[in-house]
Amino acid sequence: MNGPDTVLHSLIAGAPLPGEAEQIRATDPALGRPTGPHFTALTPDQGSLAVEAAQQAFGPYRRVSPAARAGFLRGIAEGLEGHAEQIVAAAKTETGLPQTRLTGELARTANQLRLFSEVVTEGTHHGVRIEHALPQRTPLPRPDIRQRRVPVGPVLVFGASNFPLAFSVAGGDTASALAAGAPVVFKAHNAHPLTSYLVGLVITEAAALHHLPAGVFSLVYGRGADIGQALIRHPGIRAVGFTGSRSGGTALMAAAAARPCPIPVFAEMSSVNPIILLNSALTEDPAGLAQGFVTSLTGSSGQLCTAPGLLFVPSGEAGDAFLQEVAERLGGVAGTTMLTPGICASRVEREQALAQVEGVRPVGRGQDGLTENAPAPAVYATDADTYLCTPQLSEEIFGSVCLVVRWDRPDQLRQVVDELEGQLTASLHFAENGGEDVALASDLVGRLEEVVGRILVGGWPTGVDVGDAIVHGGPFPATSDGRSTSVGATAIERWLRPVAYQDVPDWLQPVEVRDGNPLGIRARRVDGRTGR
Amino acid sequence: MNGPDTVLHSLIAGAPLPGEAEQIRATDPALGRPTGPHFTALTPDQGSLAVEAAQQAFGPYRRVSPAARAGFLRGIAEGLEGHAEQIVAAAKTETGLPQTRLTGELARTANQLRLFSEVVTEGTHHGVRIEHALPQRTPLPRPDIRQRRVPVGPVLVFGASNFPLAFSVAGGDTASALAAGAPVVFKAHNAHPLTSYLVGLVITEAAALHHLPAGVFSLVYGRGADIGQALIRHPGIRAVGFTGSRSGGTALMAAAAARPCPIPVFAEMSSVNPIILLNSALTEDPAGLAQGFVTSLTGSSGQLCTAPGLLFVPSGEAGDAFLQEVAERLGGVAGTTMLTPGICASRVEREQALAQVEGVRPVGRGQDGLTENAPAPAVYATDADTYLCTPQLSEEIFGSVCLVVRWDRPDQLRQVVDELEGQLTASLHFAENGGEDVALASDLVGRLEEVVGRILVGGWPTGVDVGDAIVHGGPFPATSDGRSTSVGATAIERWLRPVAYQDVPDWLQPVEVRDGNPLGIRARRVDGRTGR
Repeated sequence: MNGPDTVLHSLIAGAPLPGEAEQIRATDPALGRPTGPHFTALTPDQGSLAVEAAQQAFGPYRRVSPAARAGFLRGIAEGLEGHAEQIVAAAKTETGLPQTRLTGELARTANQLRLFSEVVTEGTHHGVRIEHALPQRTPLPRPDIRQRRVPVGPVLVFGASNFPLAFSVAGGDTASALAAGAPVVFKAHNAHPLTSYLVGLVITEAAALHHLPAGVFSLVYGRGADIGQALIRHPGIRAVGFTGSRSGGTALMAAAAARPCPIPVFAEMSSVNPIILLNSALTEDPAGLAQGFVTSLTGSSGQLCTAPGLLFVPSGEAGDAFLQEVAERLGGVAGTTMLTPGICASRVEREQALAQVEGVRPVGRGQDGLTENAPAPAVYATDADTYLCTPQLSEEIFGSVCLVVRWDRPDQLRQVVDELEGQLTASLHFAENGGEDVALASDLVGRLEEVVGRILVGGWPTGVDVGDAIVHGGPFPATSDGRSTSVGATAIERWLRPVAYQDVPDWLQPVEVRDGNPLGIRARRVDGRTGR
Repeated sequence: MNGPDTVLHSLIAGAPLPGEAEQIRATDPALGRPTGPHFTALTPDQGSLAVEAAQQAFGPYRRVSPAARAGFLRGIAEGLEGHAEQIVAAAKTETGLPQTRLTGELARTANQLRLFSEVVTEGTHHGVRIEHALPQRTPLPRPDIRQRRVPVGPVLVFGASNFPLAFSVAGGDTASALAAGAPVVFKAHNAHPLTSYLVGLVITEAAALHHLPAGVFSLVYGRGADIGQALIRHPGIRAVGFTGSRSGGTALMAAAAARPCPIPVFAEMSSVNPIILLNSALTEDPAGLAQGFVTSLTGSSGQLCTAPGLLFVPSGEAGDAFLQEVAERLGGVAGTTMLTPGICASRVEREQALAQVEGVRPVGRGQDGLTENAPAPAVYATDADTYLCTPQLSEEIFGSVCLVVRWDRPDQLRQVVDELEGQLTASLHFAENGGEDVALASDLVGRLEEVVGRILVGGWPTGVDVGDAIVHGGPFPATSDGRSTSVGATAIERWLRPVAYQDVPDWLQPVEVRDGNPLGIRARRVDGRTGR
């Protein structure tokens, strides 16, 4: 299937559809040359077939039992694991990411699908609230009113280049949307088309095996600017998920807002993930701290949405010594292949621009990698005043480039935090017996709450734990809508909206809100008390 | 304070600010002439002072204890009740709404504030989720992660003309935003400036009495198109609440989306609130049904967001007889004063256009009212085929005008429902022993779920109960974002976003997520179980 003579097609509602636009082929970024099969791209008209299939599937799919929906999600997880070797091999060639990272990412993707199968079964996401009638209430009787959430309708998802599995075809947005009862039209990322195809086949087969309407999932190939814009304008699409660049995300936001019927876009875009070291952080184990930082900066060639792009280090000797440790460790790290030649070229160009900013000086540099597109990781430094008056220094460089900002007064940190754009994460390092730092940390946490989605103490932001409480989101431009998360159990809520039922007879109520609680949902709220 | 020589000003952070733009004055719609004091309008530059005050108040206000915030909300409720006579008198003159309606609306507004004081105290809205660390987990240890919600920041609210109290200065959006911890900048509606002022004074006094930062609330007068657009572009505004026309709401949506940092807009706009009568509904008590419909249609001169603008009646003799009952009852109802001469003129013009559509015939008509701007309520009818092929017939006419659609086949109803634009409500009337109607009702409820925010069986959509489970929302164009409600306990969620805390020491955690649960929040979710 992965030879150069093979031609593969979009998977529309379970069947291949040869595209009538141009063909797409991946580039092996480690070798800098084309690889794998050709993929035919759909015209916008062809793309609408996927949406129409999703619309037809929506009614039947949202009505299948929680057990069936959970089984489907587990089936996809098992399919990924069953084809792990083939999928990881394709992803390795197409993305340049190392095998261990991709094996871990596949496991994480399968676990994420299982998490959502548990979410569906447990039922908290239905948001059930029941108020029984109070016929004697004055001045007016109270009707019987019950609330639950329904899926918004077919969802359009765009995959990310940097997580070819966990934020791609069977990634978080697909898993949470399918869990919510929303069919998914997935626009394959052109940087990993074969990986996308193999995962698309897994979902297609799981849908068939579980006797679900075929339109519950389609995988679409095409040029992003053409097919993506056409799909987002289709009236059958009711919400959009996206992980990628700020320019890509804001273009989708604008297109969604310009529709006759606007729809929500959940775009995860841009974050520099500041790390703030207070003085007391440097007293205990500066070598360990330096190692933790270098590991977080250089993993996956820095191509992680939570990679640390900004590091605040106290001025003075302890900070100097810490940066010396960073420079030494960094010197032993070789660059690894970046996802695409384009991403690498942009990163190299942005680094050069950074190096030329007045007041910015190099701190340390790793080795160039042995493949194509594997630039050396690099750290630069400036002082807080230069940082605060140079807006360019706040911008994300996608890749393993970090700017250190040397600070010497707490008010500089406060100003920096107050002027931050929205971020996915911020991390704070200090010692709990650190005297003045304790009060400063408390003050900074309060300020960071207003601009970030996740606050870490003593940790590194890369490696997002997929669970019940995680938030992977944040105010614009980290995401398009800071009220949502793209990772974790509550991600399902982005695809749901509430409906109330007033004086509906019990037999006609949705099962989620019936008096007998036939689904056994634990977290129902009945007459003001949760857990009925 | 309400004489023609009085000049009043915007209330910015507790103090009057004379506006430097033109003056505004209300019109008494029953007499068709100016009434009450003059109000100075702010220039856009002056309006930004309100936003800056809100920004300064945000940090301190979001940190006040739940008890203090709840006390503030109850204080506003008590202030409204303490000044009820004066407020209702002003509203009666400015809106033409009857005294009993306004007395009831004031009580409802106070109760709504008390509901949110309970919401704040109870704490479910914090959305607390705690996952304790699992240091032994493989392949990676699980960090300690805790989620809670924080307010988004200062909120801009535009009041509605048709609820001068419940959807105006101290209405739902203000109450839910203040409950969430978000300061409010309120743009007074120019149709009821004195009512707005009196209520604004109540909030201002309550804020002072409860020692809250003055910028927690400001009341701004100005031309909507100027000051509203200026305020929505201010970077300090983080979300917008609006109740009004589709054109007004979509203009705000576009302005918010065009900001360098886009923000969410919660606009409640347009709904025709279809009522569907199945055959069996006409067998039991057609006279009572007709009376219920006429009461729902004509109350508040039809100027309710949930007023029934579309009524589906079976063709045949029973339906004919029902409409005869409607016509007889309607004949005895006089029109009542509409909110403004402009709203009345638009309603009269739209009714004339409706009457001229081919295939539309009059069913019945009330009497013209005795005041200015009090047109007779009117009902027209057409057949399902005409309705389905005439898009104009689906549009809302704000006022007591209803279009009856005679249907004769269930597939017509299915098609009608499937082609509906988003609605706040839909109502279904049938007899539970109605044979075929039982299956048809079940089918229609499933379809209505996909287009409306509230489904009623055997009731009328006007009179929205303010409680724990209500949804007052719906897909576009009923609202800008069907994932939210503007009425009821869950309305607070529109002003909140989640933040996660990773490995934060207990003393540094927000109190909402600390292990000891110092706030005693009942609905916390800890390690996957709710109620810890």
